[in-house]
Amino acid sequence: MASSTSLGAAVIGQSGGPTAVINQSLVGVIKELRKTGHVDQVLGARHGVRGIINEDFISLNDASDELLERIANTPAAALRSTRDKPDQAYCEKIFRAFAKNNVRYFFYIGGNDSADTARIVSELAKAESYDLQVLHIPKTIDNDLRVHDHCPGYPSAARFVACAMIGDNFDNRSLMGVKIDILMGRHAGYLTAASALARQHPEDGPHLIYIPEQPVAIEQFLADVDAVYKKRGRCLIAASEGITSPDGRTWFEALAETHDRDAHGNLQLSGSGELGDHMAHLIEKNLTPIGGKKIRVRADTFGYIQRSFPGSVSEVDAREARMVGAHAARYSLEPGSEGSVAMRRVGPRSEYNIEYFLTPLETVARTAKEMDPSYYTGRNNITQAFLDYARPFVGPLPRTGSFDELNAIVPVSRAATAAM
Amino acid sequence: MASSTSLGAAVIGQSGGPTAVINQSLVGVIKELRKTGHVDQVLGARHGVRGIINEDFISLNDASDELLERIANTPAAALRSTRDKPDQAYCEKIFRAFAKNNVRYFFYIGGNDSADTARIVSELAKAESYDLQVLHIPKTIDNDLRVHDHCPGYPSAARFVACAMIGDNFDNRSLMGVKIDILMGRHAGYLTAASALARQHPEDGPHLIYIPEQPVAIEQFLADVDAVYKKRGRCLIAASEGITSPDGRTWFEALAETHDRDAHGNLQLSGSGELGDHMAHLIEKNLTPIGGKKIRVRADTFGYIQRSFPGSVSEVDAREARMVGAHAARYSLEPGSEGSVAMRRVGPRSEYNIEYFLTPLETVARTAKEMDPSYYTGRNNITQAFLDYARPFVGPLPRTGSFDELNAIVPVSRAATAAM
Repeated sequence: MASSTSLGAAVIGQSGGPTAVINQSLVGVIKELRKTGHVDQVLGARHGVRGIINEDFISLNDASDELLERIANTPAAALRSTRDKPDQAYCEKIFRAFAKNNVRYFFYIGGNDSADTARIVSELAKAESYDLQVLHIPKTIDNDLRVHDHCPGYPSAARFVACAMIGDNFDNRSLMGVKIDILMGRHAGYLTAASALARQHPEDGPHLIYIPEQPVAIEQFLADVDAVYKKRGRCLIAASEGITSPDGRTWFEALAETHDRDAHGNLQLSGSGELGDHMAHLIEKNLTPIGGKKIRVRADTFGYIQRSFPGSVSEVDAREARMVGAHAARYSLEPGSEGSVAMRRVGPRSEYNIEYFLTPLETVARTAKEMDPSYYTGRNNITQAFLDYARPFVGPLPRTGSFDELNAIVPVSRAATAAM
Repeated sequence: MASSTSLGAAVIGQSGGPTAVINQSLVGVIKELRKTGHVDQVLGARHGVRGIINEDFISLNDASDELLERIANTPAAALRSTRDKPDQAYCEKIFRAFAKNNVRYFFYIGGNDSADTARIVSELAKAESYDLQVLHIPKTIDNDLRVHDHCPGYPSAARFVACAMIGDNFDNRSLMGVKIDILMGRHAGYLTAASALARQHPEDGPHLIYIPEQPVAIEQFLADVDAVYKKRGRCLIAASEGITSPDGRTWFEALAETHDRDAHGNLQLSGSGELGDHMAHLIEKNLTPIGGKKIRVRADTFGYIQRSFPGSVSEVDAREARMVGAHAARYSLEPGSEGSVAMRRVGPRSEYNIEYFLTPLETVARTAKEMDPSYYTGRNNITQAFLDYARPFVGPLPRTGSFDELNAIVPVSRAATAAM
């Protein structure tokens, strides 16, 4: 049996959709393992579990600190990623590859599916009395892991969304009309909710925020947009790609059914502008323009930039992502220690203090969580409770200014008279 | 007649598509006018020329320095913008509004259409011997103004594109397949070309760059993608929204003709994902997958974020945008002084030194410029000459790291043997 003094190989893998800070966690593991010295060989599995069963590893022993620090600041999975979701048979192949290569530590950076893979592999090892410690390191821009206060990767994606929405608010204000922004998140509205962080002035958008947790019918959506547009001459909408109808189906599913597939091939939600374009067409067709002119309707789908943009990483997120990796390595020093490295808030509510702890894999695996109901309200809005929750880890946002603050709209006749 | 000591009102307006630094120019004018003191009333026209003919002005005299600095750092037009392109009759209305209100200085921040408006209004004033000085302040993310070395707004948009492409390169590398990014620029390829700044390693994308200046047929495009995909297992494409066929029509025009309009309403280029989705469908239909599996094809249209994202402003751009505004105010101190405030490079080639000068309005008005032919090559690539041109004003980009630098891909059998 391995103990804290026995040597063996460690395998690190990265899984699922990348984030801007997933390599911070990877580097956190590597650097901490170098400090503890209880592992003599650190292997990176290329493309996650697929790299394990194909024995496609790279040795990470020789990477210099300089290279590691550059990689830590590089978005997306440096070891490359996979969408494979292993079943029992797949997990047995993983375990066989570990046993064959004397792998005693498995660090898997991913979401709830990865936690489930970790759980199954751990059980297989136990069943054969093979000494293996499995540590799951959280990562998801969806922020939907149970137990975890929040998930590394989410704060930076949220920061990107908030910054983009600050810019788009003023862009929409410049040329007016209706603007729709489609944000990632098929089941959880966390990332779309982050758009509310952009508001700094009473007139600022997003004016309507649609998340999967608050279903909306097309007719109601159109009425919402009409009301804002009539009042302000413009309307900025943040909609989750998982926007849902009251019947439980997503808007995208409904769109796919009525869509002319012959002309366009298969519909696709991510990496496509179809949903946003559909919503723009709905508004163009159904809204009555002010003053008889055609309504200016535009849709942007923020797409993969949300998770991989290197220029708006949250400092708190980068630090925490590094820490969950380092903590995983430290936990592995203790024989038998296993689980998912989680964060919780401690101390007074007015301060932001994070404590790291290990939660059993099964408490995180498989089922994801939706947004806390205290975070949304009234069909299309986000609460102060959410803003208070998110602000500390999203970090300070660019402060904007508007001439509305002057409260000095002077008609030219008066203004010019005063000047002469 | 007004002289440099006579007082009169100044009107400032902003026009066309906003940028991330257009308010730097606005604040540059306002603050410099306060210093020179030759104008006693500074008016902001809301929504550009439309605000002038509607006499919809706000007094900018009372804005505090603190507010002005926040506005300078806020993206998009603080005075709001317009898409109106005035003809002779419209320009006469502008001139009448000026004469009625003793406006003696007109600062117009915009592109080549705005320069043309400025030119016509100036001629109308001269014809009536009305003392009016018209200063055009350049602004365009398209970077397509004649005479100007580059245009304020472009460096920040280019910086956004380069940063986004850095992230997307590693995202595409994580999960492989073909990724298409559609970038702004209907006629000039400058913004799309900026994607080439993202490359830091030999394997980095974008692997193919399509600009309007280098037409490509669909068959050739598909052959290009196939070759890269076969070689690398992935392909990252940067395509201008103005991607053009050898027959001179844009791909978007061709798409619009064959499109099922009944199902989707009118097609729209900006604020829509149609072109990217179309290109993705073409690739899905026509490319032979490696190993028989379906090719993963995704498309993102970067959209309005390119011009309004507050988190990746180029410092050089912010400074230069402020300076062209300040210079315009200073030029207006000299009676009869008119034109577009331009930049040119001076001094040794290895250094970046900018000199500001006034170029006649007609040298900038109307006709836009395409990219310099020395900046692109071989149907789908960008030259070192372009990178040398753009780097100084785009500024330093995030440095990335890749395990490819290790050159140490160790098969697990050897790696594990060495470890035991």
